[in-house]
Amino acid sequence: MAGNTFGERFQITTFGESHGEAVGVIIDGVTPGVEIDEAYIQVQMDRRKPGQSSVTSPRKEYDKIHIISGTFEGKTTGTPLSIILYNTDMRPEAYDDIKNSFRPGHADFTYLQKYGVRDHRGSGRASGRETASRVAAGAVARKLLERRGVSIVAYTTEIGGIKCRDFIEDVIEANPVRACDPDAAIKMVEKIEALALAGDSCGGIVECRIRGVHPGLGEPAFDKLDAELAKAMLSIGAIKGIEFGAGFAAASMLGSEHNDQMNAEGFSSNHAGGIIGGISTGAEIVFRVVVKPTSSISVPQNTININGEEKVIVTKGRHDPCICPRVVPVVEAMACLVVEDHYKRQAAMLY
Amino acid sequence: MAGNTFGERFQITTFGESHGEAVGVIIDGVTPGVEIDEAYIQVQMDRRKPGQSSVTSPRKEYDKIHIISGTFEGKTTGTPLSIILYNTDMRPEAYDDIKNSFRPGHADFTYLQKYGVRDHRGSGRASGRETASRVAAGAVARKLLERRGVSIVAYTTEIGGIKCRDFIEDVIEANPVRACDPDAAIKMVEKIEALALAGDSCGGIVECRIRGVHPGLGEPAFDKLDAELAKAMLSIGAIKGIEFGAGFAAASMLGSEHNDQMNAEGFSSNHAGGIIGGISTGAEIVFRVVVKPTSSISVPQNTININGEEKVIVTKGRHDPCICPRVVPVVEAMACLVVEDHYKRQAAMLY
Amino acid sequence: MAGNTFGERFQITTFGESHGEAVGVIIDGVTPGVEIDEAYIQVQMDRRKPGQSSVTSPRKEYDKIHIISGTFEGKTTGTPLSIILYNTDMRPEAYDDIKNSFRPGHADFTYLQKYGVRDHRGSGRASGRETASRVAAGAVARKLLERRGVSIVAYTTEIGGIKCRDFIEDVIEANPVRACDPDAAIKMVEKIEALALAGDSCGGIVECRIRGVHPGLGEPAFDKLDAELAKAMLSIGAIKGIEFGAGFAAASMLGSEHNDQMNAEGFSSNHAGGIIGGISTGAEIVFRVVVKPTSSISVPQNTININGEEKVIVTKGRHDPCICPRVVPVVEAMACLVVEDHYKRQAAMLY
Amino acid sequence: MAGNTFGERFQITTFGESHGEAVGVIIDGVTPGVEIDEAYIQVQMDRRKPGQSSVTSPRKEYDKIHIISGTFEGKTTGTPLSIILYNTDMRPEAYDDIKNSFRPGHADFTYLQKYGVRDHRGSGRASGRETASRVAAGAVARKLLERRGVSIVAYTTEIGGIKCRDFIEDVIEANPVRACDPDAAIKMVEKIEALALAGDSCGGIVECRIRGVHPGLGEPAFDKLDAELAKAMLSIGAIKGIEFGAGFAAASMLGSEHNDQMNAEGFSSNHAGGIIGGISTGAEIVFRVVVKPTSSISVPQNTININGEEKVIVTKGRHDPCICPRVVPVVEAMACLVVEDHYKRQAAMLY
Repeated sequence: MAGNTFGERFQITTFGESHGEAVGVIIDGVTPGVEIDEAYIQVQMDRRKPGQSSVTSPRKEYDKIHIISGTFEGKTTGTPLSIILYNTDMRPEAYDDIKNSFRPGHADFTYLQKYGVRDHRGSGRASGRETASRVAAGAVARKLLERRGVSIVAYTTEIGGIKCRDFIEDVIEANPVRACDPDAAIKMVEKIEALALAGDSCGGIVECRIRGVHPGLGEPAFDKLDAELAKAMLSIGAIKGIEFGAGFAAASMLGSEHNDQMNAEGFSSNHAGGIIGGISTGAEIVFRVVVKPTSSISVPQNTININGEEKVIVTKGRHDPCICPRVVPVVEAMACLVVEDHYKRQAAMLY
Repeated sequence: MAGNTFGERFQITTFGESHGEAVGVIIDGVTPGVEIDEAYIQVQMDRRKPGQSSVTSPRKEYDKIHIISGTFEGKTTGTPLSIILYNTDMRPEAYDDIKNSFRPGHADFTYLQKYGVRDHRGSGRASGRETASRVAAGAVARKLLERRGVSIVAYTTEIGGIKCRDFIEDVIEANPVRACDPDAAIKMVEKIEALALAGDSCGGIVECRIRGVHPGLGEPAFDKLDAELAKAMLSIGAIKGIEFGAGFAAASMLGSEHNDQMNAEGFSSNHAGGIIGGISTGAEIVFRVVVKPTSSISVPQNTININGEEKVIVTKGRHDPCICPRVVPVVEAMACLVVEDHYKRQAAMLY
Repeated sequence: MAGNTFGERFQITTFGESHGEAVGVIIDGVTPGVEIDEAYIQVQMDRRKPGQSSVTSPRKEYDKIHIISGTFEGKTTGTPLSIILYNTDMRPEAYDDIKNSFRPGHADFTYLQKYGVRDHRGSGRASGRETASRVAAGAVARKLLERRGVSIVAYTTEIGGIKCRDFIEDVIEANPVRACDPDAAIKMVEKIEALALAGDSCGGIVECRIRGVHPGLGEPAFDKLDAELAKAMLSIGAIKGIEFGAGFAAASMLGSEHNDQMNAEGFSSNHAGGIIGGISTGAEIVFRVVVKPTSSISVPQNTININGEEKVIVTKGRHDPCICPRVVPVVEAMACLVVEDHYKRQAAMLY
Repeated sequence: MAGNTFGERFQITTFGESHGEAVGVIIDGVTPGVEIDEAYIQVQMDRRKPGQSSVTSPRKEYDKIHIISGTFEGKTTGTPLSIILYNTDMRPEAYDDIKNSFRPGHADFTYLQKYGVRDHRGSGRASGRETASRVAAGAVARKLLERRGVSIVAYTTEIGGIKCRDFIEDVIEANPVRACDPDAAIKMVEKIEALALAGDSCGGIVECRIRGVHPGLGEPAFDKLDAELAKAMLSIGAIKGIEFGAGFAAASMLGSEHNDQMNAEGFSSNHAGGIIGGISTGAEIVFRVVVKPTSSISVPQNTININGEEKVIVTKGRHDPCICPRVVPVVEAMACLVVEDHYKRQAAMLY
C-alpha cells in the first residue's frame, strides 16, 4: 500500500493539503447497518479544531465535515464512507515569505528533498491539518467500538516540565490543556501563556487508556497490537516516542518486579500495559507518547534557503504554543482505528 | 496482509515454532544479481545465537542457516530467497510442567486466549527464537544496503540501572553485553551474573544509529520512516518502547531548544533523530528502545493454570538473565529491513 | 487492503454512490513533478460520459472533474491526487419503484445479501458510474505512461453478433460504437437502435492493445502482468471474461502452432499476447474482454421482491442498450493503472 | 505485497525453484483448532504429481509434503502453517543445452529480461512445479471450506478440439484426462498419445464449479469474487483466459436472454455464473479457463540464444503433451484459496 492508507480491514486513506481546496478521508471496510451521522463525528472534530481556548491557535477554521458517501438513511452501507472538510480559512499568502526557506523543525526541507517539489503553503500535506481527516475516521471507528464495549481516552500528563500528580478523569475535558490533574492544568496554562508571549513553545506527554478489550486481540509476529499502535502514534507528526505500561522504566526493573503475576482475579499489576506477546491481556491497555514542542515559533532561528544560503527566520502566523491538548483527540482517533481494525482481523482469523 | 509478513517491496514472511521442526523466512523482492552466500548471513546469526558468553543462555542450539531458494551460482535471482534453520536442540519435554500453566510475563495466556490452542513448547511461535528468522532476513537487507552506503549499528546503553557514559564504537562487539562503554560493560556483566545466581533478570536500553541515509527517505502520511521503525521495533517481543532523537526528553524542552537549526553545513543539532515529518533529514537516524527484563526467572511467582486455579510457578530451563546483548542484532536486522524496504518504495515513487 | 483500493505503488481508492453527493478517487504514489491539469483528464472523462451519441444513455450528467489535492502550480507533488465528480443529474425518485425489488442482472439482490442494507438509488455503489472514478485515475496513469513511451488503445470488435473484419485504428473514435471497422460500425449502430426500440440490449467484445512495454514487466508468481490485468478487467461490472493473445482458440491449437518462435527480429507470431510466464515479452500486449448485455431493459422480466414474492419488473430510466462504446475508455483506464503500477514495482525490485 | 504472496486474510507465500533444494509454501491466517494432517494434503498432491498415467510426464518426482510448522497435536494453531517439498528427482544437467537459449513458449526470455539473471534449470521459478506449493495450500483451504459446506470441483471439458458432450461427475477422477464425459475422455487420451509420439502437444479447456457458497460473498469494487478468481487463474502459467457463466457467448446474447430472472425458488438460469456485481448470488459459481498447449515439444523450433543468434531448438526431457489433467487440481486449489480468503474478509467486514 502507498503511504496515505492505513489499516487492513478497517482501512482509511487520507488526502488534502493544508491550504488546498479540502482535506478528507475515505474509510473502507465499515460494518454495514450502523447508525452514524455527521453530528456524532463533529463532536470529535470540535475537540481537535483550533481556536478552542486561549492556549490554542486563534484560526477560525471551522472543521465542518461532510459525509459524501457510504451512508444511506442514516446508516452505514458497507461501501466507502467518505468525509470531506473544505478549507475555508486559507491564507496561503501568509506563507509567501517561507516559500523559499526551510523552517527549523518543519518538514519543509525533507519534503523538498523527497519529492523535488512542494506545496509550501502552511506545510501543505505535512500540516497538522491532515490529522483532521484522522479524527473524522477515528470517530467512525469509535462508533463501531462502542458496540463492542471498548472505550478509549487520552489526556495530557505533562507539559513544559509540569507533571500531573492526580488522575481525575472527569476534569480532562474541563480544562483547556486536557490534563488529568486540575492543579497541574492551571500551571500548564500559565506556562503556555508565558511561552506564547515569548514567542516560544514547549512539549509534553499524552497518555492513552484503552478499556474493554477482551484478552486475545493482536496479530503476531509483526502486526502485534503494540507494534501497530506504535506505528499509528509515530505517524502523527509531533510525536517522537511511545512506551507501553512500565515503558522506559522497565530498563531498571527486575524480572520479578516487572512480570505481572496472575491470580484468580486476573493480573496483580499491569507493567505490560495490557499487551503481552503483541496480544491484549484483558487488562487496560496503557501507553504514553511524547509530543515535541511546536516547531513554529517567533523566536529568530538560523536556517538556509533553497539555494543553501544561510538566513535568519521568524515563523509568523497563528500557531499553538503547545500542541498537547489538540493531539489528545488525534491519539484517541488513531487508537480507535488500530483497535477496530484488529477486531476485524481477529474475526477473519477465527472464522 | 496477515501478521507474519513484514514490508511492502522488500517483504519477509517468517514461520516456525521454537520446538517444532524448523524456523525460517521467505524474503521476496530481493534485488537480483547481488552476490550473497550463507557465510555472510551466518555472521549475523552467530551474533544472535545463545551460548555466546557467560551472560547468555547456555543452549547449544547452533543457528545454522540453509538457503533453500532464490540464489543461483552465488547471486540473488529476484525470486523468493528462502532460509531455513532446523531446530536441533529441542527439549520439548522440558516444558511439560508449564503445559497447563501461564508463566508471568510470557505470552502463554494471551496466545491461548487468542487462538484457543497453543504450542506450549518453549513458547512456540512466541519464542525469541522467531527472531532468528528476522536476523537472517536482515542480513540480506544489510547486504543490499551496503551497496547504497548505508550502515546500521545498535548497542546496549543501559542494563539494570547501569548506564553507559561513553560511546566507543570499537568496543561494542568486544564485550559480552554489547555496550558502547567498556567500563559500564564490566559492571553490567557483574550485575547480570549476580542476577543469574539469584534466579532473577533485568531490563535495559538499546540504541541504534543508521548512517548514510540520504535526505528524503520515508513515506508520509502513515508509513513515515519513524512510524515503520517503531512498528518494527515494537514487534520484537521484549521491547516496550521507542524514542527518536531527544525522545521523551522533548517533553520538557522549548521549541527554541528542540528545533534543529540549519546552516550551510547542515543541522546544528539532531534532536529530531534524523527524521522530520516522517522523512529522513540526512542526519544520523538515532533511536532508543527499552528492553523489558527477561520473563523467565526461577524466582517463585504467582500465576493460574488453564482452569483458573492459582498456583506458584518457577520457570526452569536455560534463559538469558538480560536479553539486551542478543536483542542488539535483532534491532539492527529490523532496522535494515525497514530502511531497505523504504529505499525500494522511494524508487517506485520517483520512477 | 479493503476492496475499494487497487494497485500497490500506484494505488487508487474510489468512493461514492451513483445518486449520492459525488463520486471520486484518491490516487496515491503519483510520481512528483509531472505536469497535469484538469483538461487532460477531462478528455478521457468525456469519452466515458453518457449522452455522447444516439447509442448511449441520454442522461446529461456532465462528468466534470475537480482536482482537490496533489498538484501545485500545475504539477504533481507526490501527495495523494484526489479527484471529485459531483453528481448533478440525480433523480433518485426514478428508482422508487425498484426500491423493494431485485432487477435481473443487477447487483440489487447480491448487495442486499452481502451488506443487509443497500442504497437502491441507481444501483448505488454498483452503478457503472463508479467507473468514472477509474477513468479519471486512468488518465493520470496514462500521463505517466506517456513519459515511458507506452500507449494503450481499446476498441469494440463485436456487438450483437456483428464482428469487425478490419482493424483501422483511425476510425475508432470516429464512430459511435468505437469499432475498429467502419462497415461493421454502421451495422452495429443499426442493431443497437433497433434493440433500443424493442427495449432490449446486447453484449459485445472489446479488444485492448498495449504498446511500448519493454520486455520484463510483470511480477511472478501471483502478480503476473496478465493476472493483474485479468483482475482489473473482471472488476468492471459488465465484463464476464478475458483472453490473452490466441486466448480460447489455444484450446484447439498444437504446441508447434501456439509457441511463438523467435528470430533475430523478435517473435514471429504473438499467440501469447505479449506475456509469457506473467512477464511482458516486448511484443504488443493484446487481450479481449466480453461485455454482457446491459441488464437494464424495458422488456418485462420475472423477479422477486425483498419479501421473496414473485413479480414482473420493467426497468425504466435512461440506459445504454449496449455498453461497449462506454466500456472502451474504462478498459483503457484499468490497463493504464495496471501497467503504470507494474512499472513502479519493477523499479522497486531492480533498485 | 511482493508477487509471491497471494490472499489477504488467508494468505500464502510460495518459494522454491524447480531444480533447487525444495519448493514450499507458508500459509498465514489459518483458522486455529482445525484437524489437519499430511495425509489429507497428500491426496491433493498426488492428483497433481507427474507420472500418474500414460498421458502425464514420467518423472518420478514424488511430491511428498512435510508440515514444518503451524500444527500441534494434529490441529492448526493459527500460526503460519508451512509446508515443504524437497526436490528429489533433480536432473539439472538435463537442462545444460538450454542454458543459453530461449525455449519458445517458455519464460526463459522474459525472466532473463526482467531479472538480468536466471536459474535456467527446468524453468527455475517459472516451472509448473511451483504449482505444487499452491496445491498444498489449496488443500488446507479446502479443509476449512468443508466446514462451511463449500465444495469445489474442476474437470477437463475440451482437449485438442475434442469436446465433452456429457457431464458425469463420477467419471472425472476415473479417467486419465479428468474429463467429465467418458467417451470424450477415450478420444482425448488417443489424441494425446498420438501427439506424444509426434513430439507435439495440445491445449484444452478446464471448467470449475464452486458449490455451497451462500449469496453475498465478494468484495466490491476491485476485489470482486470473479476478479480475484480471474487473477488466481491467470496466475497459473499455462492459463490464457477465463470466462464466467455464459462467458464469451454473452457477446451475442440479448439482455432479455442473458439476465437471470428470479422466482421464489431462486434463479431460473445461471448465465451470470453465480456472481453478479462481483458478489455471489447463491447459484453455483461456474467458470472455464483455457489451457495453452504445453510449450515443451520435441518438434524443432526456431529461436535465439542469449547473444541474439538464431538457432533451432528441440526441447528434450519428460513433459506432458497436454497439461489439462494436472491443471485441474491447481485450478481447484486456487479457487479454494480465493473463496476461503473471501469468507474471512466477509467475516471481518460484517463483524
